[in-house]
Amino acid sequence: MTGRLSIVGTGPGNPNQTTPEALAAIAAAHVFFGYGPYLDRLTLRDDQRRVASDNREELSRAKDALHTAASGEQVCVVSGGDPGVFAMAAAVLEAMEAGPPAWRDLDLAIIPGVTAMLAVAARAGAPLGHDFCAISLSDNLKPWTVIESRLRAVAIAGLVIALYNPISKARPHQLGTAFAILREVLPWTTPVIFGRAAGRPDEAITIMTLAEADPGKADMATCVIIGSPETRLIERPGRSPLVYSPRSTGGPQ
Amino acid sequence: MTGRLSIVGTGPGNPNQTTPEALAAIAAAHVFFGYGPYLDRLTLRDDQRRVASDNREELSRAKDALHTAASGEQVCVVSGGDPGVFAMAAAVLEAMEAGPPAWRDLDLAIIPGVTAMLAVAARAGAPLGHDFCAISLSDNLKPWTVIESRLRAVAIAGLVIALYNPISKARPHQLGTAFAILREVLPWTTPVIFGRAAGRPDEAITIMTLAEADPGKADMATCVIIGSPETRLIERPGRSPLVYSPRSTGGPQ
Repeated sequence: MTGRLSIVGTGPGNPNQTTPEALAAIAAAHVFFGYGPYLDRLTLRDDQRRVASDNREELSRAKDALHTAASGEQVCVVSGGDPGVFAMAAAVLEAMEAGPPAWRDLDLAIIPGVTAMLAVAARAGAPLGHDFCAISLSDNLKPWTVIESRLRAVAIAGLVIALYNPISKARPHQLGTAFAILREVLPWTTPVIFGRAAGRPDEAITIMTLAEADPGKADMATCVIIGSPETRLIERPGRSPLVYSPRSTGGPQ
Repeated sequence: MTGRLSIVGTGPGNPNQTTPEALAAIAAAHVFFGYGPYLDRLTLRDDQRRVASDNREELSRAKDALHTAASGEQVCVVSGGDPGVFAMAAAVLEAMEAGPPAWRDLDLAIIPGVTAMLAVAARAGAPLGHDFCAISLSDNLKPWTVIESRLRAVAIAGLVIALYNPISKARPHQLGTAFAILREVLPWTTPVIFGRAAGRPDEAITIMTLAEADPGKADMATCVIIGSPETRLIERPGRSPLVYSPRSTGGPQ
């Protein structure tokens, strides 16, 4: 029997935001690898089994998944959001490149999903309406100095910034440092969105200015979006304000 | 009757990549505004009507949709991909901010979708596996000099670059100029992905090096992804190569 490996994004966590393509890939697999809380979102059959691992074990999880698929199993690696955005697809390909040649022969499918910044942006308005970037604030796999210089560069260039992995118990101070760097470059009135668990029952969307931005509003499940100098706020009577980045920039339309 | 406005992303064009949330919003609406080819993808009932417009008429389409919703209709504005990424959500909020106060009182929902770069990335491997940005190459709404300086800044900063709106009949030369700028900054071996119509029957994914990158491979339906200096290619016997950006950067793991 030929093994198969799918790497699936289930979206931000609201089942209504999971694509039919992702559900079909899940239905076709028999062994599931992933971070426990992501696997908990799946409804599995009796003939499907799960192998949960911690969220700092991506590379060994990737190797296990490739090894299992190469042995002939139908394997699914599960990511929240999109598997290609700070998630399992890159880890699996790293493991594949370094692994035995047979792993390159596997039937591989990567199934995209709605990534967190899109779900958060939709709840807040259209903050990503113009050029934007996504940067992980974790220095587990890159030096903090690289992160600092990237933040400066993209803010000066006028891009909206979505921060993934803004904070963790092991890294409590980095988001505050990031805000301090951005305050050197951006107007202090720039809107900042803390988007926690967008689309899920425990959703919390908080909008502050860069001057007020409080790192304590973020946890591991939060995506933080920082506007560009052109990002605007629309106040609405009796409703939460909307944040958007105009499509035009740098001159009259 | 209270009007309602939803701004919906239908995903890259494969019906299996449209979320149930988007389908539910479409089912609940009675009047649809959008670019004709996006509206053509919908299957509408007899009690649902469509108002198609051209792809350079976003702001007047947005005003028409807000006006119609304010008159009490259930209105849906349709984007391909995600409505918040170079699409209708920002146009609607621009029109809302400049329009009559009643427009701010509307019941508004923005429904995210799988944006083109995620679908293209998934078909090519995991090129967005690390920090990345999305830049529109259209100078309809921003000066070309701003685009040039952004391209330089993000390439120097080491971000992977997804280009939206890479080319059009009115702008045939910009993608070639963009490649020339990036060749000044990035290794000429950097992988470049031309992702056309990802997930649709007419899909075409082409991988070249930056040295070879041919603007003629792109059209209006193409998303172009340019790697960072760390983006890698995995050759596979009898299969197309995979492109990925490692999760780590700038030093040993």
